[in-house]
Amino acid sequence: MQQIENFKSIIDKYKVVFFDAFGVLKNYNGILPGIEKTFEYLEATGKEYYIVTNDASRSPAQLAESYHKSGLSIIKAERIISSGMLTKEYLDLQVRDGIVAYLGTTKSAHYIESSGLHTLPVSEINESNIDKVNALVFLDDEGFDWARDLNKAVNLIRKRTIPVIVANTDRAYPLTISDVSIAIGGIAAMIESVVGKQFIRFGKPDSQMFMFAYDMAREQLRVNKTDIVMVGDTLNTDILGGNKFGLDTVLVLSGNTLAKDVSTRITATGIAPTYICESAVIEGSDF
Amino acid sequence: MQQIENFKSIIDKYKVVFFDAFGVLKNYNGILPGIEKTFEYLEATGKEYYIVTNDASRSPAQLAESYHKSGLSIIKAERIISSGMLTKEYLDLQVRDGIVAYLGTTKSAHYIESSGLHTLPVSEINESNIDKVNALVFLDDEGFDWARDLNKAVNLIRKRTIPVIVANTDRAYPLTISDVSIAIGGIAAMIESVVGKQFIRFGKPDSQMFMFAYDMAREQLRVNKTDIVMVGDTLNTDILGGNKFGLDTVLVLSGNTLAKDVSTRITATGIAPTYICESAVIEGSDF
Amino acid sequence: MQQIENFKSIIDKYKVVFFDAFGVLKNYNGILPGIEKTFEYLEATGKEYYIVTNDASRSPAQLAESYHKSGLSIIKAERIISSGMLTKEYLDLQVRDGIVAYLGTTKSAHYIESSGLHTLPVSEINESNIDKVNALVFLDDEGFDWARDLNKAVNLIRKRTIPVIVANTDRAYPLTISDVSIAIGGIAAMIESVVGKQFIRFGKPDSQMFMFAYDMAREQLRVNKTDIVMVGDTLNTDILGGNKFGLDTVLVLSGNTLAKDVSTRITATGIAPTYICESAVIEGSDF
Amino acid sequence: MQQIENFKSIIDKYKVVFFDAFGVLKNYNGILPGIEKTFEYLEATGKEYYIVTNDASRSPAQLAESYHKSGLSIIKAERIISSGMLTKEYLDLQVRDGIVAYLGTTKSAHYIESSGLHTLPVSEINESNIDKVNALVFLDDEGFDWARDLNKAVNLIRKRTIPVIVANTDRAYPLTISDVSIAIGGIAAMIESVVGKQFIRFGKPDSQMFMFAYDMAREQLRVNKTDIVMVGDTLNTDILGGNKFGLDTVLVLSGNTLAKDVSTRITATGIAPTYICESAVIEGSDF
Repeated sequence: MQQIENFKSIIDKYKVVFFDAFGVLKNYNGILPGIEKTFEYLEATGKEYYIVTNDASRSPAQLAESYHKSGLSIIKAERIISSGMLTKEYLDLQVRDGIVAYLGTTKSAHYIESSGLHTLPVSEINESNIDKVNALVFLDDEGFDWARDLNKAVNLIRKRTIPVIVANTDRAYPLTISDVSIAIGGIAAMIESVVGKQFIRFGKPDSQMFMFAYDMAREQLRVNKTDIVMVGDTLNTDILGGNKFGLDTVLVLSGNTLAKDVSTRITATGIAPTYICESAVIEGSDF
Repeated sequence: MQQIENFKSIIDKYKVVFFDAFGVLKNYNGILPGIEKTFEYLEATGKEYYIVTNDASRSPAQLAESYHKSGLSIIKAERIISSGMLTKEYLDLQVRDGIVAYLGTTKSAHYIESSGLHTLPVSEINESNIDKVNALVFLDDEGFDWARDLNKAVNLIRKRTIPVIVANTDRAYPLTISDVSIAIGGIAAMIESVVGKQFIRFGKPDSQMFMFAYDMAREQLRVNKTDIVMVGDTLNTDILGGNKFGLDTVLVLSGNTLAKDVSTRITATGIAPTYICESAVIEGSDF
Repeated sequence: MQQIENFKSIIDKYKVVFFDAFGVLKNYNGILPGIEKTFEYLEATGKEYYIVTNDASRSPAQLAESYHKSGLSIIKAERIISSGMLTKEYLDLQVRDGIVAYLGTTKSAHYIESSGLHTLPVSEINESNIDKVNALVFLDDEGFDWARDLNKAVNLIRKRTIPVIVANTDRAYPLTISDVSIAIGGIAAMIESVVGKQFIRFGKPDSQMFMFAYDMAREQLRVNKTDIVMVGDTLNTDILGGNKFGLDTVLVLSGNTLAKDVSTRITATGIAPTYICESAVIEGSDF
Repeated sequence: MQQIENFKSIIDKYKVVFFDAFGVLKNYNGILPGIEKTFEYLEATGKEYYIVTNDASRSPAQLAESYHKSGLSIIKAERIISSGMLTKEYLDLQVRDGIVAYLGTTKSAHYIESSGLHTLPVSEINESNIDKVNALVFLDDEGFDWARDLNKAVNLIRKRTIPVIVANTDRAYPLTISDVSIAIGGIAAMIESVVGKQFIRFGKPDSQMFMFAYDMAREQLRVNKTDIVMVGDTLNTDILGGNKFGLDTVLVLSGNTLAKDVSTRITATGIAPTYICESAVIEGSDF
């Protein structure tokens, strides 16, 4: 098995660090104790960082605010790249007018609204407005009645040839130490198989997430891919995606991948990180 | 394209007829007008018939009763073979004691109960009884809160290594002339992909449905597979399943497969029925 | 974890034993040492047995002969049920005339020939005979030029709407202690995804294999499913298939599933055997 | 159905045009008659163009040379972006030393070689060098013995936890007006399902192809995504990929998608191009 390395000594080799959020910076208990040290170190050493997250439930500003409330006040909204931002960019570029139907909370929908576009929950689509619907977006697993609105979504997609966007590819997310919750990506996959059409997915491991962050990093700094390391807790999103995009990767054992399983999982999937660390926390003594 | 043939002249060649229910004998408007003539003809000519249906929401007795109420009084419960019956047989043979958790209506659960087994809706599974759950069954898309109970089902399957049975493989069913509804088979496929385990499925096109009906036919009559014809409206369940089991097949155009699409669909899927007919209705003049 | 039990004490509870072949009775080194004792015991105690194998490369007679040559002279051809037999039954019932194109050895093709049917290797299909081809069968991974003949098969399937039969669902089989070989089932899955049509598969875990064996057992003996136990080395074919058919199952650790992995694999797949044994060999002292 | 529009009037609205190669600029008969007019027009009007192709069998220089030989002398190597280039970039960034095993022609392998890396056909991997193999690349469907080398590839992947790269995602390509050929992407999908590991794929519809071309366009010209149109003949690679990346798209009917099927295919897949044109050829009178 690969040996477990010291996180600080790894990031010392890079100019830019991309972090996954859930399982790396926070978990169901809140912010990882000590993680603020890591960001202090990054700022002190002049390294750039971005948080690259499959989260379309809130805007970067709202996500940053939730970090601040949890005591991680250093993280600014402009450092957060979410699959929701890719969804918004897609709608801006490809859907010029009409209604964007959505499954998710009102909060998530507010964020993707653009000039010329009007968002409407799937529950409010009816015979009088269905012909104006020009896109359907799967945003969040909350904020709607699954039985009623998933059936409505199926029939909407059958009747209208429109782009269907999945703003978060995750199939499940951890809820407590023992329980998970079905994510909107899992729900969207069911609907896709029922209707037999091809949806558009945004989120890791897809390269578009990394490209978005890479473009932002290049606006700040003259860097290329060898200067960047991706830190994540999940082999088939963070590590596979970062690796495919050409980045070195750090698998941390503070989330989805447990220390006892890491060797088996790497062999079984064939997805190998460049490094493995206990977590992204830099110990005080390291600093 | 294959030509459209006369239904009566086809069944004249066989001793036993297997019918799919939905799209063949009935649709969202009720019983197909004139279909009773077909069953009168079968009885008059001494042919056996069975209804082979992916329906686990009710017992054969309840299904028969609903035919009677709709005016098709000739159909007896013992002629109905449902995927629910296979589920019940499985539980009888393979689950000896404890609780069978289910997703569906109380009515559907009542039918699969056996001596030694106690059924409990997924909503009522909790820490005090989870260790006694020895199977989970997906019965019907109604009778439970999707968001709450599907999440509970995911966590049940993650915690307990138990057989998970899908009592109806259909992914969707027609609700009105223009709308469909997600079926329990589609929901189960989502849960299967979220948990990454292998479920046990009962229903066409799987051979076990046909075998069950074939065993019943052989108890009544000395027949072999060449004496039986399967009549259905869906290529990838009725026709593929019947064909694979070695039966001749009739595709009827009164349900899922429309006359305008039949040629394209056969070419696209590679699934070819032995015959194509407008419907399973025998005209008065034919009689 | 489930405990490891004594094979003899398990089969004492049943009247009929179904055995998988590879990994149970033999492996790449030949017949499992001592396995003849098991069959002597079965005969001595009047139990029925059947070998249920995903092997379409040879006829039961040829398979029996190979057991005899390897020193297991007790096994008779009529006790061997292969996916090739299901393929032959299918062709007898469903393909009345014309050419059956095949991928495999001449030996494998000879076995499936029927009155009225002429088999021809895919390599010999050309413009003059392609319109007479009424079925294509994937029989064996040997006996043909993969690059040339798989491309010919793709184009045959695109041009003719005919049943395509996969006579062995396995994706790979063990070749030596460390190496595997791609099986015809794996090749067929590739062709199916390239052409986008639906093939007909015979072999475990499909119920049709078990039904065939069950019908034969019932001709000899008055038994029902609770009298039969299925013995196999592979969770997702032997155990899943036996279990779904309603049979009790024994997982043996002499083949695909190693002792060190068994607990992890059962949890990961959700497929649990009724019993686990080291192997199907009955020790001399047991007898 | 969408109406068929004039190609010249569409590209007049954009500054940069991305072209798929096969089915758009050429087919099995060679260069599309008249296509040189299109490139003359692009040069005359100062528009940039890139050819974005799922072809890893040759280097851009070799691809350009083949266009020149076929009479399309205007196309320069630096305008060709291939999935092979992404593969080469990946190897440069992620595989530092050792052997890159490959399936394909020697010509295709020569192109991906980098300093520090040595390429070796899979046929030459053996016990003495297998431990030095640090990547496996699927490059081309030609240049190797399928039966022997695909089996070797399976066992290589089972023994070594290394990245496996698929340099062309296409499952098939047209060979003549009536025949197709299995592409290396189809072969790789089979091997992936046999070994159960996750491969890294380069090629449309993946965004990385479009990003590569977009980066090159931005080095020449100050453009954003709304200035670019993607022209292709295939819905689920060119159109889906271009659309997801945020580009407007033109579906041409000179390749994979025929005029008679276009309406059905768009409805069935849910993938809708911005425009549909007969071909990318600009008529003399248009100029």
